[in-house]
Amino acid sequence: MRVLGVDPGLTRCGVGVVDSRPGRRADLVGVGVLRSAPETSTDLRLLEIADGLDGWLDEHTPDVVAVERVFAQSNRGTVMETAQVAGLAMVAAARRGVPVALHTPSEVKAAVTGSGRAGKEQVQRMVVSILSLRAAPQPADAADALALAITHLWRPAGALQGGDRHEATAAQRAWAAAERRSRAPARYRTSVRGKEGAR
Amino acid sequence: MRVLGVDPGLTRCGVGVVDSRPGRRADLVGVGVLRSAPETSTDLRLLEIADGLDGWLDEHTPDVVAVERVFAQSNRGTVMETAQVAGLAMVAAARRGVPVALHTPSEVKAAVTGSGRAGKEQVQRMVVSILSLRAAPQPADAADALALAITHLWRPAGALQGGDRHEATAAQRAWAAAERRSRAPARYRTSVRGKEGAR
Repeated sequence: MRVLGVDPGLTRCGVGVVDSRPGRRADLVGVGVLRSAPETSTDLRLLEIADGLDGWLDEHTPDVVAVERVFAQSNRGTVMETAQVAGLAMVAAARRGVPVALHTPSEVKAAVTGSGRAGKEQVQRMVVSILSLRAAPQPADAADALALAITHLWRPAGALQGGDRHEATAAQRAWAAAERRSRAPARYRTSVRGKEGAR
Repeated sequence: MRVLGVDPGLTRCGVGVVDSRPGRRADLVGVGVLRSAPETSTDLRLLEIADGLDGWLDEHTPDVVAVERVFAQSNRGTVMETAQVAGLAMVAAARRGVPVALHTPSEVKAAVTGSGRAGKEQVQRMVVSILSLRAAPQPADAADALALAITHLWRPAGALQGGDRHEATAAQRAWAAAERRSRAPARYRTSVRGKEGAR
């Protein structure tokens, strides 16, 4: 299974592609950062990032796109832009029929380090170890995107498939609940309406 | 000049196209609402709305797309989704080389009714009057999209072109300042980067 992880952002958007391997290992396929010029208008910046995401999807044809879940309560001053880039990643995947999974920062920390409260550096060290890299990808957004992809590969079996949760840890159960809330139902209904209420 | 107004939303996204006429009048070209199924996953819902926006842009080829400016401090529980749809509208316009303008709800009320504190019903009545409609377009999102388009047609001359602001009212100056912050600079720099920091 190949996962494209996306750490959304308008100034820097981390992207990382990882292939699963047996035995809780994974292979790095590609990693990078999409950037947009801060002095440009938001619409052109969003387009720049959207084009970049399209390029990564077309080049690496992932089976799943894992995007960081953005919360309105985030302290980041750029939360709206971050949400918009996350939306672009979701649409780019949906347009290609690629499923989307959203993972919270806590889920990522728990999956990669075993602790939902791990620090940034600990996550980066584990990414280096898991993928057998010589050094952490820079900037941090790139490493975070890889961590997101690994998180999706290593999600608990119950998290996506509704399996037996008796053996799951508390963290895994919380994760499974978050996944359930974001899971796609089977049916996809088209209901775009045309012109209404004209004179 | 033809303006497509977009009142962003994931459940209902209002769209309205208006042509300018001499003498502070305007013609209705089209109005409607894009909808997505609430039981579907967010990525597919965003795609549904994105496809709908593409359709309106291709059919009506507006000169400008006017989108409601979404604030993180909004009380709406759906603020993240709203921001994402606003982002999709911006990208859809940018992809076609169509300029984007953002207007706040207060700007819309002030432009259409003369008071930044006007109620929803007052805005709708003015939309009906300005466009010579028999009744207000339903649902309210459709009328709001038309109000956004009218707001852009009637923006103060100084708001976009940096003209003489001595005669501007306080509301117009605040508006001009908001417009300046969102205005596109002339240069559009591409800075998408490829793979970085691989092993």
